Amino acid sequence: MEEIEVHELKKVELNKPVMVEGLPGVGNVGKLVAEHMIQELNAEKIVEIYSRHFPPQVLVNGDGTVRLCKIEIYAWKSKELGDLLIVNGDQQSVTNEGHYLISERLLDIAQQHDVSRIYTLGGYGIGQLVEKQTVLGSVNEVGLVDEMKGYGVEFRDEEPGGSIVGASGLLLGLGKMRGIPAVCLLGLTSGYLVDPKSAQAVLKILCRALNLKSVIDMQDLKDRAEEMEKVIERLKEMEEAQVPRRREEELGYIR
Amino acid sequence: MEEIEVHELKKVELNKPVMVEGLPGVGNVGKLVAEHMIQELNAEKIVEIYSRHFPPQVLVNGDGTVRLCKIEIYAWKSKELGDLLIVNGDQQSVTNEGHYLISERLLDIAQQHDVSRIYTLGGYGIGQLVEKQTVLGSVNEVGLVDEMKGYGVEFRDEEPGGSIVGASGLLLGLGKMRGIPAVCLLGLTSGYLVDPKSAQAVLKILCRALNLKSVIDMQDLKDRAEEMEKVIERLKEMEEAQVPRRREEELGYIR
Amino acid sequence: MEEIEVHELKKVELNKPVMVEGLPGVGNVGKLVAEHMIQELNAEKIVEIYSRHFPPQVLVNGDGTVRLCKIEIYAWKSKELGDLLIVNGDQQSVTNEGHYLISERLLDIAQQHDVSRIYTLGGYGIGQLVEKQTVLGSVNEVGLVDEMKGYGVEFRDEEPGGSIVGASGLLLGLGKMRGIPAVCLLGLTSGYLVDPKSAQAVLKILCRALNLKSVIDMQDLKDRAEEMEKVIERLKEMEEAQVPRRREEELGYIR
Amino acid sequence: MEEIEVHELKKVELNKPVMVEGLPGVGNVGKLVAEHMIQELNAEKIVEIYSRHFPPQVLVNGDGTVRLCKIEIYAWKSKELGDLLIVNGDQQSVTNEGHYLISERLLDIAQQHDVSRIYTLGGYGIGQLVEKQTVLGSVNEVGLVDEMKGYGVEFRDEEPGGSIVGASGLLLGLGKMRGIPAVCLLGLTSGYLVDPKSAQAVLKILCRALNLKSVIDMQDLKDRAEEMEKVIERLKEMEEAQVPRRREEELGYIR
Repeated sequence: MEEIEVHELKKVELNKPVMVEGLPGVGNVGKLVAEHMIQELNAEKIVEIYSRHFPPQVLVNGDGTVRLCKIEIYAWKSKELGDLLIVNGDQQSVTNEGHYLISERLLDIAQQHDVSRIYTLGGYGIGQLVEKQTVLGSVNEVGLVDEMKGYGVEFRDEEPGGSIVGASGLLLGLGKMRGIPAVCLLGLTSGYLVDPKSAQAVLKILCRALNLKSVIDMQDLKDRAEEMEKVIERLKEMEEAQVPRRREEELGYIR
Repeated sequence: MEEIEVHELKKVELNKPVMVEGLPGVGNVGKLVAEHMIQELNAEKIVEIYSRHFPPQVLVNGDGTVRLCKIEIYAWKSKELGDLLIVNGDQQSVTNEGHYLISERLLDIAQQHDVSRIYTLGGYGIGQLVEKQTVLGSVNEVGLVDEMKGYGVEFRDEEPGGSIVGASGLLLGLGKMRGIPAVCLLGLTSGYLVDPKSAQAVLKILCRALNLKSVIDMQDLKDRAEEMEKVIERLKEMEEAQVPRRREEELGYIR
Repeated sequence: MEEIEVHELKKVELNKPVMVEGLPGVGNVGKLVAEHMIQELNAEKIVEIYSRHFPPQVLVNGDGTVRLCKIEIYAWKSKELGDLLIVNGDQQSVTNEGHYLISERLLDIAQQHDVSRIYTLGGYGIGQLVEKQTVLGSVNEVGLVDEMKGYGVEFRDEEPGGSIVGASGLLLGLGKMRGIPAVCLLGLTSGYLVDPKSAQAVLKILCRALNLKSVIDMQDLKDRAEEMEKVIERLKEMEEAQVPRRREEELGYIR
Repeated sequence: MEEIEVHELKKVELNKPVMVEGLPGVGNVGKLVAEHMIQELNAEKIVEIYSRHFPPQVLVNGDGTVRLCKIEIYAWKSKELGDLLIVNGDQQSVTNEGHYLISERLLDIAQQHDVSRIYTLGGYGIGQLVEKQTVLGSVNEVGLVDEMKGYGVEFRDEEPGGSIVGASGLLLGLGKMRGIPAVCLLGLTSGYLVDPKSAQAVLKILCRALNLKSVIDMQDLKDRAEEMEKVIERLKEMEEAQVPRRREEELGYIR
């Protein structure tokens, strides 16, 4: 196995597709969206990427078989709505340089297919429960800001601020060097739990931007979000039951 | 010394051997089984593998000499029962990429000998004492599940679940790419102690699968398991003697 | 992208320039000075350096665009005062070898421009508020010590002592191998906060050494230092308000 | 600078010299011995080794100059007593593979000079003050054990046991592959402090083995050991003064 090994499973001809990246990360927001899109669009897997920059392990499937950690790329063709490449995966790189190398390889593939734009998806952890679902944007061409605002994306002077770590950030930065327009959409999330509600918010924006509302049903994500809401409700109840005692402790701590 | 250096100590002609891997890991289950098999079968060392992906240290032998960390491969020939290659070693890789590279090298050797199947052995830590000895299975070809169940291997939807780290996992994942059928057998173990009892359970399954019952005596592992039982018994007594006080502490902690 | 990628934005002819390095570090002292000089001198960006030894992330700008972590080199030409190359950047290497490789690359560029001397700038954290602004010096040619003392640089037997980590140190050590005279100026700083006051002290020395007093106004750094003074004042007040209790605690701890 | 860069400062013709390695480590025992030998024998520096596997920093000398971390090799010629190569240095590798690569390079140099034997020196930390100065041995040829016992080296079944980390271990392990006899001498030491007393014990053995008693005066190490004894005495007094209170605390902890 090479350092990064790209297995092309199927040759497809795409017409200036949009690439959507949703690899694991904060709240698994990006991955949830990418998986949901692949399922709803019944997109076809065309590429698998293996690398020794992924963790040195295999993942166990439900049927007792195992698989190496990998990134997968799916294709979806539509004359009316435009073609898509959707990037999904088990893991991001665990080495510093692997992050750069794998993002470069994804951009190679994007260029092979003459990609017209890249959307990278992720979560932005705020360390507390999210009151109002919000999607923050970053771009690699200043001209994209207004278009994104039109879809409901927020741009804040201060936030996402700092940095965007991993493929979701590097595809923008390295993509700019190659002249590929790219947008990063980060759904606000607590950062503590898998967050299908934040994924829903991100997907809504993406459906507006890509005009996919008619072909992507949200029900599945809604169901998962509701399940998660119940989990959070239970956690809250458990927490409230402990509040009197915890208050004391906190006072003790601050004193 | 090259990045990974393979010293072939002896050329042997084997007939479609089965490879058994037992490198250090959780509860040292895999290593105990591999060592026991080598000893019982009086297998012959044919290969040593050195690498700068092993820890930068030497190990001290009982006679005052030292040795570099290494992986060893032993051969055992039997017209009636089939040939074996047994992989044993001091250490696994300490670098991320080393895990991949060393597993690839082991597969190169497997292919040189036209290996018919690989068994990788290890422990599955559950964080508490094991009530009932159990061996969990994973495979790299779905067709192997039923055969393994026939030998008493358990396949659980949820477990081993997650991931199998190191050579025991990668030999399955990377082996699949080369078309080598492979099975991972993980003995349930607490994860806190070296576990010859779990090794016994794994070895029993393996003896059934490889028809080795007649040539491998378990007494040695049984003796070691009994010694370990006594150690655990003493640990339990010590723990129970402290329970009243510890309960108080825990209350104090939770309060 | 190569391991380290140098983008030459503009060709300039410089006359034996002095290189000034101010990358991020303790108290951000070096970076503050380099940024201030670039701004005051209106220096021109001529080089950008990208590397996979920087963190795998992009930084978000105020306008919603992002940028890869990079090091920038600015040029300033002056027949009367001498030419300058100023090195500024978002980050230092996050890998061990990257520190060496990036410093070597900076020296390559220094040699291309026939640099006559290098000043590296940084902070020296002392773990408490600084009473008297002090700049400690280290050199890579013993003959430079007296000249530096003449500008008000302190050389202490014991301090900076130990080591100078990162580009500020390596440019001296590796520069010596190439025969480039180099001086490291470290402003004393608490190490807890960004320290424009320490940056002012370092810049004063540098202006003396490079005869730049007439062209670099300090007001901006003074303003930032005053703001920071207020922050520190508030922190002190908060601390003093807690002192009675904290004293008790400390006694409790020492007891 | 190459990954590992060997600067040969002077060509010397040596007659089957013995190599003595004393790099930094536990209690700095090995380094103290090597430095003392270089000083007493007035050995001549012939090689400097630089590497990006050393920490990315420079060390500050007393005169305000800096130096890159390096390993140095000194030569000493004596027709009567035999020639020596003494390896001393600021640091060991900070990367896993660097340990292997640097040890290999040292062995290359050993072979260039047709070294007849290698002694590697270090400390063996026991986590408490050492009652009786002891030097533990390990070898890479079993035939060396008896010779070493004759010089007063102890070989214990259990100790040093486990492993010898870094160059002191790898020179034995990798040296064996090249057929160079090698001995590791580890002075028992607490592991908490620089230990010139343990260094003295190691040096005594080495002087017997190399017949150097007539040319190496121990006074300097004795003086340093006495100073350190006073430090330890003061630490003990401080500790005893606190004992009543600490006992209480400990009881409080165990309770």
